[in-house]
Amino acid sequence: MTPAERCDAAYQGVPGAYSEQAAWALVGAHARLLPCPSLTAMFEAVREGRATRAVLPIENTLAGVVPRAYELLLEGGLVACGETRVRIDHVLVGRAGASAVRRVLSHPVALDQCRKYFAAHPHIEAVPVFDTAGAVAMALEADTADTAAIASRRAAARHDATILAEHIQDHEENWTRFLLLAPPRAEADGDVRHAIVAFTLPHEPGALARVLQRVADRRVNVTKIESRPMEGRPFEYAFLLEMQLAESVDGSPEALRHTTRGRLSEIMSDLRSVAENLRLLGAY
Amino acid sequence: MTPAERCDAAYQGVPGAYSEQAAWALVGAHARLLPCPSLTAMFEAVREGRATRAVLPIENTLAGVVPRAYELLLEGGLVACGETRVRIDHVLVGRAGASAVRRVLSHPVALDQCRKYFAAHPHIEAVPVFDTAGAVAMALEADTADTAAIASRRAAARHDATILAEHIQDHEENWTRFLLLAPPRAEADGDVRHAIVAFTLPHEPGALARVLQRVADRRVNVTKIESRPMEGRPFEYAFLLEMQLAESVDGSPEALRHTTRGRLSEIMSDLRSVAENLRLLGAY
Repeated sequence: MTPAERCDAAYQGVPGAYSEQAAWALVGAHARLLPCPSLTAMFEAVREGRATRAVLPIENTLAGVVPRAYELLLEGGLVACGETRVRIDHVLVGRAGASAVRRVLSHPVALDQCRKYFAAHPHIEAVPVFDTAGAVAMALEADTADTAAIASRRAAARHDATILAEHIQDHEENWTRFLLLAPPRAEADGDVRHAIVAFTLPHEPGALARVLQRVADRRVNVTKIESRPMEGRPFEYAFLLEMQLAESVDGSPEALRHTTRGRLSEIMSDLRSVAENLRLLGAY
Repeated sequence: MTPAERCDAAYQGVPGAYSEQAAWALVGAHARLLPCPSLTAMFEAVREGRATRAVLPIENTLAGVVPRAYELLLEGGLVACGETRVRIDHVLVGRAGASAVRRVLSHPVALDQCRKYFAAHPHIEAVPVFDTAGAVAMALEADTADTAAIASRRAAARHDATILAEHIQDHEENWTRFLLLAPPRAEADGDVRHAIVAFTLPHEPGALARVLQRVADRRVNVTKIESRPMEGRPFEYAFLLEMQLAESVDGSPEALRHTTRGRLSEIMSDLRSVAENLRLLGAY
């Protein structure tokens, strides 16, 4: 594949997916995008050079962490180089003149964001499928008119589907955070405001406190922390730490400008003395 | 419902599920169990008094955190009073004399634990359903003989299904950790070796380090840490901390015996001065 044939970003889902929206926000509205059937396939597409970058949904404000997202970040060989947040606004879509809905197809995370709707309609079955936009196509192709899908307005419009109900998510404030991933580069410069690191710890009291104290000593804010079991080592954990490097004490733009890769190197050097197997999984 | 009619524990899935195995380990082999169609339904069963306790799968060593498990622990009004770990050993099951398999049904977490199998058999479609044991029944009832399921040997035996392939999970070391949940009790005593707490933090450098330093000062080991977005407050987080209270410096049984509720109260009092909205979500 020549560089000219390579896509700008791979995403999970089909056109109309929320991930496609995130990809446009991250790599531009004129980017060439590669739809992938799974998150694993998306990582492969970048490792094999079919796409330059990948768009990974990491967490949703209602449904929590996206299953496998942190595992793939730990194992996938790519690093985060950007971030965006997409507002999720689900509608119930189906065929024009659809009869009483009995089955609703969507991505499991989207179904999870509409629990109150299903609780209020106990006769409707929630059917998990791999993708919100794909669910619209499946609902339109279903044998019976009683099948609908939960997806974005954009996915509905793309398939000329009819909006059967609006505001079906549990809470209006429904956002998904996406990371832009790329192969690690040897040389990197420019401003850095966020960093994601992974490490393991000796199994002793105070080990994690020591790591976080080093971070605090640099006046860096921890925005998120996760621990994940390690494959083949049951109930030993890798820790993932997301940090906001640029939150200066006085919040001045001047301080923000000076958050460079050099500062990140200093922090990594601090952490190396208290954490094991330290790796930088993202900086942007 | 009279106490005599009340089940000893509710679990998600149908008989033959791994959760049923966990329930037997946690409440005894002669317990009366209540199968539930979803984790949410399981929490409701306990809140409404139809079951005394609930069995919550929390994390798997291959697939990571169980989707929604920590969210439900935060919101569900129950607290953890016990824990067990179940070895997960999947087989591929179907009809006797099944032809070439084209579709495999299972719980999304089980499908996730067999990624290498699906990568090696790209013509086989992975179809998520709500439960491993239920997937066996669905596969046996499918219109065509090319549908199989991923489930336990026990689920296969229960349905008289044929084992088509063994060792299909990615790694032999495949465990799921389950928590036993019950309504909070005003009075609680006895030994406590594990505690789960939830709290929020002021958005400033060092806030989490201060909490963990208090824990370390008590010589208590942090075994797991998670952060979860809060509903309606996008990208503000609740932190969940799992602690092993009884890991004494010298590991003597004497020290273990003295880890009482009193010690837990001291730790909670320490944490209250550095964490906000502190809650005890489990002690056992």
